[in-house]
Amino acid sequence: MRWIRYSHGGRTGYGILEGDRITEVSGDPFNGFERTRTTCELKSVKLEVPVVPPTFYCVGLNYAEHIREVAAKQGIKASLPEQPDVGYRAVNALIAHEEAVVIPRDASKVQYEGELVVVIGKKAKNLSEAEALSCVLGYTIGNDVSERVWQKSDRTLWRAKNADTFKPMGPWIDTQVDLDALETRVRLNGKETLRFRTNDMIFGVARYISTMTRYLTLYPGDVIWMGTDGSSPDLKATDVVEVEITGLGTLRNPFIAET
Amino acid sequence: MRWIRYSHGGRTGYGILEGDRITEVSGDPFNGFERTRTTCELKSVKLEVPVVPPTFYCVGLNYAEHIREVAAKQGIKASLPEQPDVGYRAVNALIAHEEAVVIPRDASKVQYEGELVVVIGKKAKNLSEAEALSCVLGYTIGNDVSERVWQKSDRTLWRAKNADTFKPMGPWIDTQVDLDALETRVRLNGKETLRFRTNDMIFGVARYISTMTRYLTLYPGDVIWMGTDGSSPDLKATDVVEVEITGLGTLRNPFIAET
Repeated sequence: MRWIRYSHGGRTGYGILEGDRITEVSGDPFNGFERTRTTCELKSVKLEVPVVPPTFYCVGLNYAEHIREVAAKQGIKASLPEQPDVGYRAVNALIAHEEAVVIPRDASKVQYEGELVVVIGKKAKNLSEAEALSCVLGYTIGNDVSERVWQKSDRTLWRAKNADTFKPMGPWIDTQVDLDALETRVRLNGKETLRFRTNDMIFGVARYISTMTRYLTLYPGDVIWMGTDGSSPDLKATDVVEVEITGLGTLRNPFIAET
Repeated sequence: MRWIRYSHGGRTGYGILEGDRITEVSGDPFNGFERTRTTCELKSVKLEVPVVPPTFYCVGLNYAEHIREVAAKQGIKASLPEQPDVGYRAVNALIAHEEAVVIPRDASKVQYEGELVVVIGKKAKNLSEAEALSCVLGYTIGNDVSERVWQKSDRTLWRAKNADTFKPMGPWIDTQVDLDALETRVRLNGKETLRFRTNDMIFGVARYISTMTRYLTLYPGDVIWMGTDGSSPDLKATDVVEVEITGLGTLRNPFIAET
């Protein structure tokens, strides 16, 4: 099932996407819902961020190739993380599919990071790895836009990762996903620049959820961005970045300059 | 004015605290409100976290003495931050005044950090330092409970700072505050263990808000915890920590062991 959050006719809410048609629901996927008799065409609506998370988790270093690339650029030896440490991003930065990433005037080195996003559906604490995926509603796509100069100077990555519009997420949430079958492809201005097996993570989704819920409670609507592989060219205004994950759709965002 | 968030008679919502009496309001301090004719005694209600923030900001190193203490314990030279870098905490960890901090079974070095908390009242972007405080609704108190062993091993401080119950906040929000008149006092089991001038920050509230809103939008209900001074003894189950800030009240939380 595909959950879509959208605005149409002055209303913002959830619907179920089947083919190119949306069936409006009352309620939402987290607290219960009912299908209504109202339907509309996908192309007639404005897509919204598929969920505004209570807590916005994001994994920083979770693919070996990405870690080697980062280390090489910093001129240091690559070392893989020894435990699943989850970090945070901020909801101010979220934008939807097709909305514009605004490059701040003083930004000089902006890059994409195409990521699988886990959407939590149920309150969860102390889940074993075997039962971890039971709290997952579904998956969507994120682009963890990063400013690499600020990433070196900000102790906390607050500007580098969380400037307004730096976190495109969407287009929708898919509930039937075979993690091992997924491939992530990133296209810059229509040309493929990166491709990797989505599940080729150092610590997978179940391991992360199990480790996290030993110490914290996950809540419905929380999201976990699972990190990226490879590297990115530097982006400029007028660029368009698409992140596609097999079966999950394509998250597409133009980049524009701050005015 | 004092805004209090509380549960009473099966309802959770906002009220205005005058002396020991609460006047229930319809609405809330962020989106508009009206006083109702319903009042009750402060002692008859359960206090709730005064706001569940859309984004939970927290300043890590903002008092010179605290930085020197941290550096001394790590055996490194103290260096003051060169710019106001704001970090993040997570809402899963929030608890209210009088609720218990649960020390995880495998935690070994738990400490308090008494902090001034800024509560944002209005959407804000690109505020100058002179106009920065115009977006502030008021102030409350936070205890940034930290596990120091995990603080060294977690790349992101996720367990060290954000284990469930590690973020007491309250007791209420005070809208009339003279920052320069504030003093923070921490008491452990009734005995004062720390006292510092609350506004003796490296970068003050206005400077932080101005710098942050250059790159990000602050939203109503966002909170910024402003950091702590000094150091803390190691805490154990049965301890009770009180953080008092002049005029803002006292945030009191017992510590218990995970069962």
